[in-house]
Formats: sequence, structure tokens, C-alpha cells
Amino acid sequence: MLGSETETQEILKGLEQSLMRNINYRFHLFGDKHHISNELRNFEKLHNATNITECADSITMEDKPSEIIKSKTSSSMYLAIKSIEQKNADAVLSFGNTGALMTLSALNIKTLPEIKRPSIASIWPNMKGESIVLDLGANTKLSAKYLIDNALLGTSLASILFKIDKPTIGILNVGSEDIKGNEEIKNSSDRLRELDRLGLISYYGYVEGNDISLGKTNVVVTDGFTGNIALKTAEGTAKLFQSHLNSAYKSSFISKLGYALSSISLKSVKERLDPRVHNCGIFMGLNALVVKCHGHSEYKGVSYAADIIYSLLVNKVDEKIKKYVIEMQNKIAI
Amino acid sequence: MLGSETETQEILKGLEQSLMRNINYRFHLFGDKHHISNELRNFEKLHNATNITECADSITMEDKPSEIIKSKTSSSMYLAIKSIEQKNADAVLSFGNTGALMTLSALNIKTLPEIKRPSIASIWPNMKGESIVLDLGANTKLSAKYLIDNALLGTSLASILFKIDKPTIGILNVGSEDIKGNEEIKNSSDRLRELDRLGLISYYGYVEGNDISLGKTNVVVTDGFTGNIALKTAEGTAKLFQSHLNSAYKSSFISKLGYALSSISLKSVKERLDPRVHNCGIFMGLNALVVKCHGHSEYKGVSYAADIIYSLLVNKVDEKIKKYVIEMQNKIAI
Repeated sequence: MLGSETETQEILKGLEQSLMRNINYRFHLFGDKHHISNELRNFEKLHNATNITECADSITMEDKPSEIIKSKTSSSMYLAIKSIEQKNADAVLSFGNTGALMTLSALNIKTLPEIKRPSIASIWPNMKGESIVLDLGANTKLSAKYLIDNALLGTSLASILFKIDKPTIGILNVGSEDIKGNEEIKNSSDRLRELDRLGLISYYGYVEGNDISLGKTNVVVTDGFTGNIALKTAEGTAKLFQSHLNSAYKSSFISKLGYALSSISLKSVKERLDPRVHNCGIFMGLNALVVKCHGHSEYKGVSYAADIIYSLLVNKVDEKIKKYVIEMQNKIAI
Repeated sequence: MLGSETETQEILKGLEQSLMRNINYRFHLFGDKHHISNELRNFEKLHNATNITECADSITMEDKPSEIIKSKTSSSMYLAIKSIEQKNADAVLSFGNTGALMTLSALNIKTLPEIKRPSIASIWPNMKGESIVLDLGANTKLSAKYLIDNALLGTSLASILFKIDKPTIGILNVGSEDIKGNEEIKNSSDRLRELDRLGLISYYGYVEGNDISLGKTNVVVTDGFTGNIALKTAEGTAKLFQSHLNSAYKSSFISKLGYALSSISLKSVKERLDPRVHNCGIFMGLNALVVKCHGHSEYKGVSYAADIIYSLLVNKVDEKIKKYVIEMQNKIAI
């Protein structure tokens, strides 16, 4: 799927790397057919596993989601989403406009029963491994219903991805006792504690911003406003750290030598924490898998996202999440 | 001021270091007199610049702010705050319970005219230098009035600390056009744009989480809930980065050698971005200076905080902020 800020070369290279690990992968690319065909010549293996659909239009980063529904029906994003509805594809990977992708997904792929709006989940690296954090920007409204939905969706994803029976759930909140949470957060916390008592989930309680990186819980639940700001603040901090590190290493000959000697381990740290590699958002609560990657992804980020999608598809994550959410909702209703 | 999670040794060492740079500093310490006197023996210079007030009680991290007002009148925190009211001190530095400190400060030191509640500001390192971010947890309620107050308080602090005539202001928000801001954020943004047009301030517009570290504006304004989570998420990310870095360096002999060679520049990066050094919160909007440092501060963090307080006092920051805020409010009223 093209028409994004990510370069075609990077996308194709990333997809080919993932194809080498996941040999049954088949790709439909949506965009400028002539351009993609030309670029594909450099990727022989990928070429044989790929169809291209010519798209006359694309959605830009400036397009407003509310305005594209009717006007952009020949855009690459629209046609890619439609290919799921038409059962020509199992998942969509996009590097484009998040709001537009969310709107088109909700309208065409539709949400699971009882899930009012999709939310965006991310796999966040932490001291112990990884955790699922959601919502990262789909619903900026703070509502107990959404927080509980997020907890259920996040739990189902974490249990499949991390192979844990009952992943622990935390609700993101501020520290001081006196100002802890507003009514919506308190209500959702009470409700989750109830579900925990019934043995349906494993609810930890409130967690703070630094607990995400500590890996205190497998799932961190928050509203889309707070989650978006937390995610982007973490990205900014990681970049600041890298930039200071790079300039520190350039500060003297000895430092440069040190850098050269330790560059392999440093590179691995950077990759493990690099937002360009890790920041793909998984749209949760839809009837099919839609993943949005950073606009400025590099091939490693593309192949990482493609690997995750493949593993989720092979694990039939859609069906499992659907089953889990419906089961949970039935149990909750009782 | 003692009775916190920070060790007395670390506090005293930090204060002595700051005293060596700021020789006119005088300290009042509040806590267990016998214990402090004993520890002070190791710090000759500090000893001569210090009074100790014996306190029979202390406020713990578990004490609820609402419950301490009457019950903890012989605590070190209460007596320290009272010493400002009694004009025995110009500023308070605390390592204790943030909520309790906020409540005692608001009640005893009182807020500036028209400022309803104090907020917490922090000096946040970024790619270009530093910026002021507030509120970091005093008011978790999102209100246009508080956001505008924060903008004025942050601007006055930034203009004094960074010696800029009209610091640029950004309001923290999420990225996607469609979901940008709720009514309170929009209203405060409209109001700040109006003040900008009148030439009173320099309002940039909305900024995102990653823009804090990029240093897009000199002042970043947000509500206490979002700010607290942004701050702690950034702290967590910095710690995660350090921890991965440390274990990467231990992974092989070559890496260790690399680390040894580059340890000086690495150390400087860590200090520049270490939350234990940088995280002190400046309580804004009060009639006197109150600064809260991280509970687990190390001496470098203590001396950094003490230096900032000294420079703010020497610059008569209280008077200037008071004057600025009143002037601005008069101009806004016109």
C-alpha cells in the first residue's frame, strides 16, 4: 500500500525480508503501478509474490478523515481497505494518514459486536520484554466503556502475542493519591476489579507513566489522548537520547574509538528501542487486521510490521479476539 | 528539609556542592536534629551555613494531603512551609510527598492574585537546550482557565531562566487533525492566539509529545494529568535506554573496552538526561518559591535543584513572576 511518506524502496525491501522468513506471504500493493513495477525489479522474490492494483489517487497527510469518505474512492488507501471487504486480502498495512485509515476501516471493515470504536494498540518494549499499550490515538474521549473495551482487546492481543493465559492489566493514571483519576477512570477500575474477582481477567490496578517501561503489567490501558501523548513523548525521549549519544561519541578521538568498538551492541540497543522500527499501531476491535506504521518507516520497521501481521494471521488472531471479546461480553452481561 | 526517601547524606552533599558555587546561601534544615547534626559533621562548610529545626513528626509518602492539614503541624514539611510565611526562609526545597507539599503550600503561602491553583513546572532537556513544561501533576482537571494561567506562569519562568524576551508557547495536543483537542484546549488556544495578536505573548500553536524533546517551543502547556504521564513516560524511557545500554556494554569484551573508552562522554549524556538529576518540579503561581525534587534524588540532583533555587532567588523571580502575571492579567482584562 503506497502513497505515503515512506519510500517505495524501503517498503519493498522490508516486505521481501519478511517474505524470506514467511514464505507463504502474498502481497497486494496499491499505488502507482508503473512506479511500483519498476522498483520491484530489484526484488525478485517479492516480485513473484506480489500483485499490484493501479490507483489513480492517494490520500495525503493533510486530507481530513471526514472529507475523504466520498471523494477518495480511487485512492490506494480506500482500495486496500475495500480489498478486505471483498475478501481479496486478510490484512492491511499502511504508512499513511492515521485518521483517514481509522475512518475508512471503521466504515468498511466494521467493528466487532459491542465494540463501538476501534482503538490503536502498540507493542511497547520494556525492561522485561514487551507490553501492549492502547489506545494510542483513536478515541480521544475518556470513557469508562472505552477503557474497559481497551482492556479486553489488549488482553486478547497480549495473550496471543505473548502466549500468556491471563495477561495482567493496568490502567494508566497519575501518582498522587489525592488526585488519582477522575470518575471514568475510577469506574473502569472498579469494573475491571470486579472481573478480576470473577476470575475472568487479571487486573493489577493503576500504573504510572514510568511503569510502562518497567513492564509492570502486560497490558496498559488508557484513553487515546493520553496514550498518544505518552507514545510520542517516549519517541521524542528516545530520539533525544540517541542524538546526545551520537554527539557525545563524536566529541573526542577516544570516544570515537570507543564507539567503533561498541557499535555492534549499541546498534542492537538502538534497534530494540528505535521508534522507526517499533512504532506500528495495531487497530483493535475491527473484523480484520489493519496495521498503521510510522510515516517515515525504514525497511526494518516495514519487515517488523509485516512479521507481526503474518504471525497474527497464522495465529488466526481476528477470530480469537472476536471469540474472546464476545465470550467476555457474555460473561460480563451475566 | 528531611523526612523523605532521599538519604540525608545525599541531601547534605548536594547542598554543600551548591554552597561552594553560591557562597551566600544559608540553609534551614527541618527534621531529626540529632541525626542531621551527626551527619553534618562530614560537611564543614555546610555546617557553618546551616540551622536545624527539630521536628517531632514527618509526612510520609502514604499520607493523604487532605488529612495532614491539621494532624501534621509538627512535621518537617509543615514547619518548613511555615518558615516562609514567618519570613524565616525565601524558598522551600522538598523531597517528600508532592500532594501534601502542594496542599500545604497553597494553604499557607497562598497563590498569586487571580491564580486559582498552583501548578508544577519542570525544566525539560531538549535537542536545542531546555524548555519549561507545566503542569506536571498539580491540577488534573482540564480547564481553559488553568491552561492559560499555565501559559502565563511558564512564560514568565522561561523568560527569566532562559533570558528570552518573549518565549514561544505551545499547547500539548494529539496529532490527527480530526481529533485535535477538546473544547477546553481549543478555547485556551484561541485565547492565546488573541494575546499573541496583541503582541503580549508568542504563541506557537499545538505541539505533540515528541515536540517537547525537539524543543519546538520554549514553554509547553498541558493539564496536570497529561503532563504527569508525559513526564513519567519520558523518565521510564530514559531509564529503559540506560538499562539496555548498560547490558549491551556488558555483552562482550570488545563492548566493555568500547564502554571504558567512551565512558566520559557517555557519563555526560546520562547526566544531561538523567531524571534523578533533572526532575525537580517548580511550584508555580505561589507567593514564594517551592521546589519538589524526586524522592530518590542523588546529590547531583540536590545540588542542581539548589542551584536553580539560588539563581531564581537572586533574580527575584517571585517578584518578577508576580509583576508579570498581574500586568498580563490587567492587559488581558482590557
